[in-house]
Amino acid sequence: MIKVGIVGGTGYTGVELLRILATHPEVEVAMITSRSEAGQPVADMYPNLRGYYDLAFTEPDEATLAQCDLVFFATPHGVAMRMVPGLIAAGTRVVDLSADFRIRDLDVWAKWYGMPHESAEWAGRAVYGLPEVFREQIREAQLVANPGCYPTAVQLGFLPLLESGLVNPAHLVADAKSGASGAGRQGKIGMLHGEIGESFKAYGASGHRHLPEIRQGLELAAGGRVGVTFVPHLLPMIRGIEATLYAEVRDPVSFDTLQGLFEKRYANEPFVDVMPFGAHPETRSVRGANHCRMALHRQEDSPVIIVSSVIDNLVKGAAGQAVQNMNIMFGLEETAGLAAPALLP
Amino acid sequence: MIKVGIVGGTGYTGVELLRILATHPEVEVAMITSRSEAGQPVADMYPNLRGYYDLAFTEPDEATLAQCDLVFFATPHGVAMRMVPGLIAAGTRVVDLSADFRIRDLDVWAKWYGMPHESAEWAGRAVYGLPEVFREQIREAQLVANPGCYPTAVQLGFLPLLESGLVNPAHLVADAKSGASGAGRQGKIGMLHGEIGESFKAYGASGHRHLPEIRQGLELAAGGRVGVTFVPHLLPMIRGIEATLYAEVRDPVSFDTLQGLFEKRYANEPFVDVMPFGAHPETRSVRGANHCRMALHRQEDSPVIIVSSVIDNLVKGAAGQAVQNMNIMFGLEETAGLAAPALLP
Amino acid sequence: MIKVGIVGGTGYTGVELLRILATHPEVEVAMITSRSEAGQPVADMYPNLRGYYDLAFTEPDEATLAQCDLVFFATPHGVAMRMVPGLIAAGTRVVDLSADFRIRDLDVWAKWYGMPHESAEWAGRAVYGLPEVFREQIREAQLVANPGCYPTAVQLGFLPLLESGLVNPAHLVADAKSGASGAGRQGKIGMLHGEIGESFKAYGASGHRHLPEIRQGLELAAGGRVGVTFVPHLLPMIRGIEATLYAEVRDPVSFDTLQGLFEKRYANEPFVDVMPFGAHPETRSVRGANHCRMALHRQEDSPVIIVSSVIDNLVKGAAGQAVQNMNIMFGLEETAGLAAPALLP
Amino acid sequence: MIKVGIVGGTGYTGVELLRILATHPEVEVAMITSRSEAGQPVADMYPNLRGYYDLAFTEPDEATLAQCDLVFFATPHGVAMRMVPGLIAAGTRVVDLSADFRIRDLDVWAKWYGMPHESAEWAGRAVYGLPEVFREQIREAQLVANPGCYPTAVQLGFLPLLESGLVNPAHLVADAKSGASGAGRQGKIGMLHGEIGESFKAYGASGHRHLPEIRQGLELAAGGRVGVTFVPHLLPMIRGIEATLYAEVRDPVSFDTLQGLFEKRYANEPFVDVMPFGAHPETRSVRGANHCRMALHRQEDSPVIIVSSVIDNLVKGAAGQAVQNMNIMFGLEETAGLAAPALLP
Repeated sequence: MIKVGIVGGTGYTGVELLRILATHPEVEVAMITSRSEAGQPVADMYPNLRGYYDLAFTEPDEATLAQCDLVFFATPHGVAMRMVPGLIAAGTRVVDLSADFRIRDLDVWAKWYGMPHESAEWAGRAVYGLPEVFREQIREAQLVANPGCYPTAVQLGFLPLLESGLVNPAHLVADAKSGASGAGRQGKIGMLHGEIGESFKAYGASGHRHLPEIRQGLELAAGGRVGVTFVPHLLPMIRGIEATLYAEVRDPVSFDTLQGLFEKRYANEPFVDVMPFGAHPETRSVRGANHCRMALHRQEDSPVIIVSSVIDNLVKGAAGQAVQNMNIMFGLEETAGLAAPALLP
Repeated sequence: MIKVGIVGGTGYTGVELLRILATHPEVEVAMITSRSEAGQPVADMYPNLRGYYDLAFTEPDEATLAQCDLVFFATPHGVAMRMVPGLIAAGTRVVDLSADFRIRDLDVWAKWYGMPHESAEWAGRAVYGLPEVFREQIREAQLVANPGCYPTAVQLGFLPLLESGLVNPAHLVADAKSGASGAGRQGKIGMLHGEIGESFKAYGASGHRHLPEIRQGLELAAGGRVGVTFVPHLLPMIRGIEATLYAEVRDPVSFDTLQGLFEKRYANEPFVDVMPFGAHPETRSVRGANHCRMALHRQEDSPVIIVSSVIDNLVKGAAGQAVQNMNIMFGLEETAGLAAPALLP
Repeated sequence: MIKVGIVGGTGYTGVELLRILATHPEVEVAMITSRSEAGQPVADMYPNLRGYYDLAFTEPDEATLAQCDLVFFATPHGVAMRMVPGLIAAGTRVVDLSADFRIRDLDVWAKWYGMPHESAEWAGRAVYGLPEVFREQIREAQLVANPGCYPTAVQLGFLPLLESGLVNPAHLVADAKSGASGAGRQGKIGMLHGEIGESFKAYGASGHRHLPEIRQGLELAAGGRVGVTFVPHLLPMIRGIEATLYAEVRDPVSFDTLQGLFEKRYANEPFVDVMPFGAHPETRSVRGANHCRMALHRQEDSPVIIVSSVIDNLVKGAAGQAVQNMNIMFGLEETAGLAAPALLP
Repeated sequence: MIKVGIVGGTGYTGVELLRILATHPEVEVAMITSRSEAGQPVADMYPNLRGYYDLAFTEPDEATLAQCDLVFFATPHGVAMRMVPGLIAAGTRVVDLSADFRIRDLDVWAKWYGMPHESAEWAGRAVYGLPEVFREQIREAQLVANPGCYPTAVQLGFLPLLESGLVNPAHLVADAKSGASGAGRQGKIGMLHGEIGESFKAYGASGHRHLPEIRQGLELAAGGRVGVTFVPHLLPMIRGIEATLYAEVRDPVSFDTLQGLFEKRYANEPFVDVMPFGAHPETRSVRGANHCRMALHRQEDSPVIIVSSVIDNLVKGAAGQAVQNMNIMFGLEETAGLAAPALLP
């Protein structure tokens, strides 16, 4: 059994890790930390876990964490970058679900996250945990930077187009929509049911923290500069991200070519489902599951390729992808703990 | 592997059976029937099942069904009562999720379901599939009548009070609320999102089909006549039933006695969770899971015991309980296929 | 024009007052106070009011408030009881939407609200603002205690039964459900969309602050002690309360008698709609409107009368009823500013 | 009083017309037709209208309709084009909320609506009912073609950019999202609460009927061909459209210039609200109201102008704009019947 610790377990990402790991055949959760809730049994805070865990939240304690085979960080940004170097030095491997190690350019990181980065060494050595791109590096990684939710949906949808060079990388648009759980579990007025229910809006349209992460990934795929506009929106629901992606082909290309390109790119991916040309993926088709489903569209006489890509922001967009990364790191079946279908309806 | 057939698989109960059985370690779904959708792959109708099933819907064919070890009926009432006798004669066992075999008094059945019953023999031999009451009989049953969703939540909440004789059975009130999936997947205007979203109402308040089923179960528990008022309500959400139950104690009784009564009654039940006195069970704490959670309340200077009981109407209220019954019938681990925690948030 | 001030205008009750008063033909809102938002234009916080108000929130200032003809208090409990005596002494009339003056027995008030009452004089002189009972007293009142949301729905539904003596007052049950806006606009984790959406639960089942207010009103109607059990529930929606009420008739009584009783009781009430026997009122049928709709039910062979009563908790349950009371106090058309139908769908 | 008839009143657009006209000071609804519901009182179908209308649905009868000053068509496409010529000949004016007269090119119309057009004459003479563009022509119009919901939100957002020539018209993207009421009130499985709730998806991404209407309007504004990609999405809520619009500026332009351009364009429009640069309009800020609110955004170092535009699809996107058009046609105050603020929360 792999001995796992979770730092910062009171948020939605933390409870989602616990939910997934509850039935993982090869994992034992040894420790879950929370400064604010230390002493409280996790099943008191999350009654869906009654009968699954006797564990209580504890104060974060590096010595105990260091005895884990793997530590997940489900903390706000700025925490992992301080604790990770010590844990790795003590022999623990880490999957960081926060943003601390996702951005290579630390000036960019500092600008968007409002503080200087404190671990340039590990920012350089972290592997970006998108298995569809970095699977081999993840196997050996000491530290995996688990991707953001929007970046996962957007990158997976754009990758085949950019890697193939079929589209012009200068005019990409990613219009993305997320359920409210993406904002975390904090007592903010703007996230009340009375504020979000039965309403819809864009937010961060002048610039969102996930934009540099998206650009970094797309530029790697394109092998050069990309021009991408990313606008997130808030959905009156809990789980799910849909990203509608727009790109212009350089030269005329047939439906079959495009569809074939995507199917081939993801043929061996256990969690990416390319639906038939013209399908419309629904977020509920991935609710609670680690899948990303996508489909292609094109409008008459138009050079624009449209990709609709859906994930569950808490699963493939966070905790599920983290477990997928753990499975890869420890040589387990990649789908272990992640085998159940989505909850529909 | 147990070979399973599903009759009437296009509704929410059918897809829920498929979702649960997709990861059941001992079951192979051999056949799923639908007259209207014959020929269509199930994963085309329910994209959450893409990658899990190659199966397509087929016309119902008794000869093929008879080769199954177990057949689930997820049909409207009136179908199972015609097909079941032949299937059982051919050696197949049956779990009927419809209402055909739940009511002992066939005059009552005929009145509420608007047609004469066509299988008095099997109505008499069917075992009512509430494992918390009839586990031993279910083991040997040829035919299990899977309980209704409301009756499951209401009976489990009232049972300890009635079995113990602590309350007056003449003045019971069951105020129950259900998500919209309980009404099935049919194109009715009254079930449109535009009609149900952001609104709430009672329905069937002058009499609902689940009332005689509830009364039958409560009278068995009480050992005599009960007076029960049952009012269902429609919630602007998809899954979940909450029943708030009101009963008056005959004599003063302490909190501890009441709590102990419930805890003892369900101590060995894998799917009934008695929460601490004063807790408020949330439907989300059982979403997608086969649990029933309940808690007790009492108001100052009042003889009224209040029980709040929650289930997922599609799981413990339908497909999950059906799989639990199958597990019992075939000597499997009772929790097989039903081990995952609820999806929260 | 009546010059109106609002104390505590940043919550949902405050914005609802502004929404209703925006088109009231006889009212000018002269002042709206908020300590925390002083200086901010109300239309910045509530963009639905852009173009309707130039007003900004100001620090509460008794001298300016005293120049108003009427002051609404939309404050947490404990504020109005301190400010009201001074304002009335200065000649201003008051409608208090908080709980400060609703309960006659100040020991009961102190127990449920956790502080001693500071204005016994005005607690005794306040008129309870349920126009269907106290219309004449409201006309002359200096101070109106606007009823709570649940108490409005529950009292209106029970009143004809208790006033007529048709039912046994010892065994009343009020099972009530409210949208999330009833909890106000504060950054509490428990009211996040991620916590409330797609879920349902009882709360306060062992005792809720609205219970003594309900009991006080029902006892007045019954002319003696009543035994009432009241359980509130939280709905995954924003606006609307439904209360399902249960009472037992003393002697057999016909449908027509019951229906006639209710129709006669409310024949001249502009905001109470008795629907035909057996109808099921929906909360959306009163969304944004000041109406209370109700209907009666009875189940076969049962002595229990069931009343389903719906209101919009922010309108008839708060701001709308407050404006109705103001209209009565100032001799205006009772429906002024409250004439628009509900927003359906 | 203007005597008004409504053809096809059972859908959401029909009830919304009734809701708005219920408090319109200058209008009397003389007739509302429905073949399927003839004889039923409108208040039985829509209980929010109890007490407002004694009217019942009637069979459509051209002779009676011809006695109205104005007839609204709230019918599926194909109905108005057959009835309108006769009504106009009889002296009645018409506002058609269906798509019959919106498209100038009747071959395009026939292709998207699947039938030949039957009134080329009136297709040529109809005035497109977007008051912000065609107010003067609407005053004198016999027939107004009321715009579609998406086209209203999209055109109002793009107009200032295209009219000014600031952006390149070849690469426009309109990513639009609508509440479920836009799909009407028909018993389709795909519009059930169980299918739509808690989920999100694109639809019609390969081509939607509103695309040619949008293109026609944008080309008129641009004075030439435009390349526009339009993808609609379905929101798990009832009312509201948000359109996020993307366009590239030809030459560098300052924030102030852009903001000033929009503010000047809509300075005298009673129902278009240009919010401050960087605001994020919420659909709830226009719920039940005839406003369109919009705001501009730009991301660092990007030539892309982002416009977020929100309307209530049933009001400014249908019935409200129809009443606005009626007000203009009859020389009434343009805001008559449309003066109330949006319902928030």
